[in-house]
Amino acid sequence: MEIWNTAITETGAGQIRIRGYDVSAMMRERSFADVLFLLHQSRLPSMGERRLLDAMLIASADHGPESPSSLAARVVASGNRRAPEAAVAAGLLAIGDVHGGAGEECLVLLAEGLAWIADDADADGDERSVATAAAGIVARAVREGKRLPGLGHRTHAEDPRATVLFAMARESGLAGSGVALIEALRDEAARVIRPLPVNVDGALAAVLLDLGFPPVAARFVFMVGRIAGLTAQVAEELTRERPMRIRVPVSYDGPAARDVPRDPVP
Amino acid sequence: MEIWNTAITETGAGQIRIRGYDVSAMMRERSFADVLFLLHQSRLPSMGERRLLDAMLIASADHGPESPSSLAARVVASGNRRAPEAAVAAGLLAIGDVHGGAGEECLVLLAEGLAWIADDADADGDERSVATAAAGIVARAVREGKRLPGLGHRTHAEDPRATVLFAMARESGLAGSGVALIEALRDEAARVIRPLPVNVDGALAAVLLDLGFPPVAARFVFMVGRIAGLTAQVAEELTRERPMRIRVPVSYDGPAARDVPRDPVP
Amino acid sequence: MEIWNTAITETGAGQIRIRGYDVSAMMRERSFADVLFLLHQSRLPSMGERRLLDAMLIASADHGPESPSSLAARVVASGNRRAPEAAVAAGLLAIGDVHGGAGEECLVLLAEGLAWIADDADADGDERSVATAAAGIVARAVREGKRLPGLGHRTHAEDPRATVLFAMARESGLAGSGVALIEALRDEAARVIRPLPVNVDGALAAVLLDLGFPPVAARFVFMVGRIAGLTAQVAEELTRERPMRIRVPVSYDGPAARDVPRDPVP
Amino acid sequence: MEIWNTAITETGAGQIRIRGYDVSAMMRERSFADVLFLLHQSRLPSMGERRLLDAMLIASADHGPESPSSLAARVVASGNRRAPEAAVAAGLLAIGDVHGGAGEECLVLLAEGLAWIADDADADGDERSVATAAAGIVARAVREGKRLPGLGHRTHAEDPRATVLFAMARESGLAGSGVALIEALRDEAARVIRPLPVNVDGALAAVLLDLGFPPVAARFVFMVGRIAGLTAQVAEELTRERPMRIRVPVSYDGPAARDVPRDPVP
Repeated sequence: MEIWNTAITETGAGQIRIRGYDVSAMMRERSFADVLFLLHQSRLPSMGERRLLDAMLIASADHGPESPSSLAARVVASGNRRAPEAAVAAGLLAIGDVHGGAGEECLVLLAEGLAWIADDADADGDERSVATAAAGIVARAVREGKRLPGLGHRTHAEDPRATVLFAMARESGLAGSGVALIEALRDEAARVIRPLPVNVDGALAAVLLDLGFPPVAARFVFMVGRIAGLTAQVAEELTRERPMRIRVPVSYDGPAARDVPRDPVP
Repeated sequence: MEIWNTAITETGAGQIRIRGYDVSAMMRERSFADVLFLLHQSRLPSMGERRLLDAMLIASADHGPESPSSLAARVVASGNRRAPEAAVAAGLLAIGDVHGGAGEECLVLLAEGLAWIADDADADGDERSVATAAAGIVARAVREGKRLPGLGHRTHAEDPRATVLFAMARESGLAGSGVALIEALRDEAARVIRPLPVNVDGALAAVLLDLGFPPVAARFVFMVGRIAGLTAQVAEELTRERPMRIRVPVSYDGPAARDVPRDPVP
Repeated sequence: MEIWNTAITETGAGQIRIRGYDVSAMMRERSFADVLFLLHQSRLPSMGERRLLDAMLIASADHGPESPSSLAARVVASGNRRAPEAAVAAGLLAIGDVHGGAGEECLVLLAEGLAWIADDADADGDERSVATAAAGIVARAVREGKRLPGLGHRTHAEDPRATVLFAMARESGLAGSGVALIEALRDEAARVIRPLPVNVDGALAAVLLDLGFPPVAARFVFMVGRIAGLTAQVAEELTRERPMRIRVPVSYDGPAARDVPRDPVP
Repeated sequence: MEIWNTAITETGAGQIRIRGYDVSAMMRERSFADVLFLLHQSRLPSMGERRLLDAMLIASADHGPESPSSLAARVVASGNRRAPEAAVAAGLLAIGDVHGGAGEECLVLLAEGLAWIADDADADGDERSVATAAAGIVARAVREGKRLPGLGHRTHAEDPRATVLFAMARESGLAGSGVALIEALRDEAARVIRPLPVNVDGALAAVLLDLGFPPVAARFVFMVGRIAGLTAQVAEELTRERPMRIRVPVSYDGPAARDVPRDPVP
């Protein structure tokens, strides 16, 4: 079998090193957010970076039993009480394109916008700014009838998690062009479409971009944060509810009762 | 790396054989139930065995969107529309101990009962019959306050799937001591506890035991059958419903709003 | 809570009907492939359609422990012996875009090709045939440097499952423009690129298109078939191998050992 | 539909509170470990408790690609590149009874041992101590031929993660009877069986017991920590390796090639 190369973790008799750092030493000196940052960036974060990553994990941690991930986890726990890992995994599986996946899509969009701004080879000589990039992106979304990932929320008129995260990013001097572009998108959308708050997906995307993470990290950070809530939701289902308790009101509107033909048509 | 031994499938240039039989030849001559039987028993089934396995798969195929497996699959599809495999897998994860898992537990119980009957070394000279085994099993369940796996259903007073399966097993001469024992358990439970129909889990357990399958097969056959329904449930969610449409009526009864202490107690 | 509408299954006291047909009656008269067809098409299949669907399920059933789905299932079973549903679900999760997902992509491609042929409004007056569609599709793939989904196999120079399936479709008169187009693609690819056999994904796509299934059905049929093999692979791992037995040869090539800075940079 | 009660999270227009605490305020003031503790204990931790929980999450974060969870995640990523949530979920599914599940089992064992010590009603008047409890538990394991959960490791003669965690628990005054009992078990096992280090599962179990967590928390904390590593393993597979790259050396030892009988025996 081919050798598997890995640049993440080295294990040997009595020692485990992640990206070169001894795990025992990090247990003493560092936080979980530091190690998550290290795993993905191969360096330990500054205090400001650590605080932003902690804030993003907390922002993602739980949103009640109604979010598809929590709901899926509780439904699985309701039928499968001996394997809580199955319930938590089912919760993660709901974090796809619609639920919790907008962050990844938004980060791609922001990165493309910034690449367009950075590109000098503008044939028509127009100045490229965050505002013109935002105008172009919103115009395209309107033209194609598509929603803007990272903007809008089904419950919140303003998503408090986004507001705090951007304030923290500014205070620590880590807010960059990612945050600037998504705020420009929000302002342009408010002008052209309707008020659409930056949601938690969009906030994570902008800040993670400014911290140097690739698009898939928006999904991963949301998942790492949300698993805290999923474990609590599953624990509550297992300790507080009886098995198979979940009912939904079903109405059948398919074909009427009919007889089974004895043999298939040859 | 150590060699992986397998007795299931052999693949090579231009050929695939399952348990020694060419897949292409089986595609021409055989049914899916035949191959499922073959995969687990290493022999092809008789016509009667095939028909019973088909009947068990059909019995397991679907029970509406309310069963935990279907519900979990639809919730995941509601948040994750680009990866239907995630939704179907979440459905399978709900098939644990409570939902769909009673078959495995029931098969273990039946096998233990039959082993007890077959055991000659009965110190007290009493005759061991299906009826005395059933009486002992029911008495123990009553004493320990445990339910009997394979008996009872939350919707059906009589589970029509069990009735038909037992009739088919009898007609084909394949009903054996497994079917006899679960029917004795049902009769004893009706006498001692209350009328408890054999449910689909119990029916599968009894017939699979008589066909020579091990306990875990009750779970596997249910899963293989149910995946047909899960794929249809996911297809209906994706084509008929809008994303994130699922709502549950939530009431919060946890701690009241309180201020976050700025620093942890040292 | 909103009512959930469903056109699949109706359950009530003592009765279960799928698409209007009583499950008990189908257990007596029909096969599992019939019910899978019914669940997705809302009608029972002809004998020829049933045989093709059975053949597709058998073609998908197993391909040894090395396929990503089987391998994932066995690895999970190796660490999780009390929840076989987790192992089978992990196997399904590997059926994504690369493994087993080409069928869906291929069915989309074929359907687009047939729609292009059927479109009368051809501005330049050229005749549109299966051959010209195939030439256009292959030319585009070459131009864009993309592989053709449904063609090529890492093990087989000719995939025997495709050959048999197409022969069966022809014999039963059910091979239509889907089969014709993928064979034209294969011939064109052999001329322009190199010999690329139709693989099992492509064969399923073409035949399912001719049977009236939508693209996602290619994934679903593969999953339903493969779950038979996954249950057998998991059963073999659990009965034949010791826990945690799986080793891979790992080589670490990340950062060298380094000291953990005591405090994050502020 | 029945109301769902929850004591975890309250959401409303513009506000999210976990166990009564505003999420935005916690994003500013607290760490992820604080919120995980809060979700499960309904109170914020002290600084010492936070540091122990962080250390446990770091201890669980990664152990290289060879652990069943990482391996399963990478195999799934190898076949499913468009849905990283499927790969991470498959990794969690491997955290069952054998891999990563010993913590839960160990915590149950420790809690039973402490309950036995605390029980005054000792008929024979013997003094009940941590040492006599440990002797009894080890003797029973030897008698029943069972391994002791939380002791022993396939790679490490001493698990450095356990050593550091116990030192930290002592330094902060949080090491209690859980740590005392597992160390007594280790010493007794070394005397009676052979040197068996406390492994990371056992260390988490003992410290979580002393922090007031229930048994299932050992599994949950391991899962929350490990998901950090799983996301990094999946990211490395997706960016560094080609699809479907994973091969295992397979040897078939099942039935020899044989002809398919045309019809089933009736």
